[in-house]
Amino acid sequence: MPAPPIITLTTDFGLQDTYVGEMKGAILAVGPDSRIVDLCHHVPPQNLSAGAFALETGSAAFPDGTVHLAVVDPGVGTARRAIAVRTSRRYFVAPDNGILTRVLEHDPIEQANVLQNPRYMRPERSSTFEGRDIFGPAAAWIALGTPLESFGPPAGELRRLDVACRPLAPGRPTEVPLAWIDRFGNVILDLRIVTVDLARIRVETPNGTVSSTAHTYGNAPANVPFLLVNSGGYLEIAVAGASAARRTGLDLGMTVQVSSVL
Amino acid sequence: MPAPPIITLTTDFGLQDTYVGEMKGAILAVGPDSRIVDLCHHVPPQNLSAGAFALETGSAAFPDGTVHLAVVDPGVGTARRAIAVRTSRRYFVAPDNGILTRVLEHDPIEQANVLQNPRYMRPERSSTFEGRDIFGPAAAWIALGTPLESFGPPAGELRRLDVACRPLAPGRPTEVPLAWIDRFGNVILDLRIVTVDLARIRVETPNGTVSSTAHTYGNAPANVPFLLVNSGGYLEIAVAGASAARRTGLDLGMTVQVSSVL
Amino acid sequence: MPAPPIITLTTDFGLQDTYVGEMKGAILAVGPDSRIVDLCHHVPPQNLSAGAFALETGSAAFPDGTVHLAVVDPGVGTARRAIAVRTSRRYFVAPDNGILTRVLEHDPIEQANVLQNPRYMRPERSSTFEGRDIFGPAAAWIALGTPLESFGPPAGELRRLDVACRPLAPGRPTEVPLAWIDRFGNVILDLRIVTVDLARIRVETPNGTVSSTAHTYGNAPANVPFLLVNSGGYLEIAVAGASAARRTGLDLGMTVQVSSVL
Repeated sequence: MPAPPIITLTTDFGLQDTYVGEMKGAILAVGPDSRIVDLCHHVPPQNLSAGAFALETGSAAFPDGTVHLAVVDPGVGTARRAIAVRTSRRYFVAPDNGILTRVLEHDPIEQANVLQNPRYMRPERSSTFEGRDIFGPAAAWIALGTPLESFGPPAGELRRLDVACRPLAPGRPTEVPLAWIDRFGNVILDLRIVTVDLARIRVETPNGTVSSTAHTYGNAPANVPFLLVNSGGYLEIAVAGASAARRTGLDLGMTVQVSSVL
Repeated sequence: MPAPPIITLTTDFGLQDTYVGEMKGAILAVGPDSRIVDLCHHVPPQNLSAGAFALETGSAAFPDGTVHLAVVDPGVGTARRAIAVRTSRRYFVAPDNGILTRVLEHDPIEQANVLQNPRYMRPERSSTFEGRDIFGPAAAWIALGTPLESFGPPAGELRRLDVACRPLAPGRPTEVPLAWIDRFGNVILDLRIVTVDLARIRVETPNGTVSSTAHTYGNAPANVPFLLVNSGGYLEIAVAGASAARRTGLDLGMTVQVSSVL
Repeated sequence: MPAPPIITLTTDFGLQDTYVGEMKGAILAVGPDSRIVDLCHHVPPQNLSAGAFALETGSAAFPDGTVHLAVVDPGVGTARRAIAVRTSRRYFVAPDNGILTRVLEHDPIEQANVLQNPRYMRPERSSTFEGRDIFGPAAAWIALGTPLESFGPPAGELRRLDVACRPLAPGRPTEVPLAWIDRFGNVILDLRIVTVDLARIRVETPNGTVSSTAHTYGNAPANVPFLLVNSGGYLEIAVAGASAARRTGLDLGMTVQVSSVL
């Protein structure tokens, strides 16, 4: 018998309350053998853009067949839909609010359905905690093999966030949002470095231009902000042994000017 | 073969140290197949009342047969007893200090025994960490099917916290303690809303009376504290997209006056 | 069939980002049945000494056969080696930077190999996240039964931190570093109390001498810093219901003078 599918959790619930535990209880009440893995519960509260980034980055290494549940849900209890999505290699369960935008960019939808069949929801439901009452149970049912069409009608078009690819035109600065700031103060820009030579990039920050580069933290110049391609392929500003966010004056919600010199 | 029972953990250990990990190691040393789920490790330190609330709220969604371990234990190493409890549908392992008060209110005890048989404890024991040395192993043994009477004599009467039901008499204010403040600053009052109409309730806070109501966060008036019935059935004060605790001036340990208008 | 071996994780990644989740994904991609347990993700960033302490303390209670992965890795991407170690009863996977110093003190190495066979690494590798790309997969392969020699050549001598045993000479003060400060503000000294009588010990702190003792927190004098032997056998300074770190003015990185009176 194959290993029962894995269910990952990405939320903005934090860990100081019982919300994550309650959601796990609701999952285990449906599928007692569910293999639940915490991906990230510290998405900044109600920040869909950061949630979409965490889900993309966090889910990439998981094996095929995994069910990824994502609940950052400012519209809980309103008319926004709850959906389940199947791609060629995995599943997603989430509110239809754009949080799946990034994961679906390079992993196209094969099927998407609305979660509306009460048979697959928790018997007692609240109006404020669909993570426990709808999304968690749906993830467990999918992990047990329930086909998506059992949950409700086809979802049609899904909501998407504006995360348009920003090609760097040589010499012309491009405005790039911050995607994430991590525990170490590393600043991750919403820019994938694929074709551009890192050494040609300049980033303007409130505290000056960053243009040094390094291959890894361990061989970077001391005390100087530098650029590197991070472990997810994104452009990152770091300072060896210190917080690049503090050094550069950058914070989530800001944008920077990035240019590629000739 | 049925899925091995689940063991949930509710503590005030936090996650910054190795304490939770050590307790899991002690559980797995007894039952390597134990399915351990973190319910909440951020109960405010040594706060039995908040611990009792977290255990009730967090454990509700779990399937029958689950073993719930709760360690908030200001009296560790003193004469307070360690106990195991069986109700009609689940198990609890905890110090006998009242932390089970709420879960046992609507789920009466069928059997309760004192944990004193050293055969079911960790061979090397410390005087300060019974979570690892006594409670964790006991939970694992129970999950393996060990009957409660193996652990020690019947426990008789258990200690209870004073969490008396406070009926709202129309027109007369009732003093209600805060039960919990969550990550988002939502303030949960120790008052279950069952028979009373939410629209008739008034709550006095340091920064004024709250009487607006909403069904969920997403359709609440902006910037105004409002009342709702939360996902556990308790009365909650919230502010859409902001901290109700900060807005109302409320903090854990305080009480509020609640009245029901005619 | 025996339970699949347990893999524990000790890192300085924290839990606010997706790093721990990504590492778990990489482990599960190799061994979908892996039983992953978080030991501690809040080692102070890049603090090898604290990491070595957390790994020793956190791993002690786990059953034989467990694979302990430890990633505190200031030298990621540089020439420092990645290693796998087998002792008489468990496995370790870590950078060769001294983080294994404490666990290997009383549990000698039986085999140690360098992780360099790309067959046991993640297909796509970054230069900054070997926890996900090298260490996690190696732990999963070991848990599946892969012999250490498959990963690379024998490791020979490993790097060790200076954690020399400091015997207390009666009457003469000894300089002792702090090993850890926990959530409750308990200050753990890097000194194991085995042969010395606790009542004869004096510790000099910035705010005065500590010489009171107690067997456990629950029966300690109120408001007074006292000494006890903690649950890992180390000398600890505590204050009942308050932070000993704040009371004594001690912080990680400091040392204290400890003496044993005649």
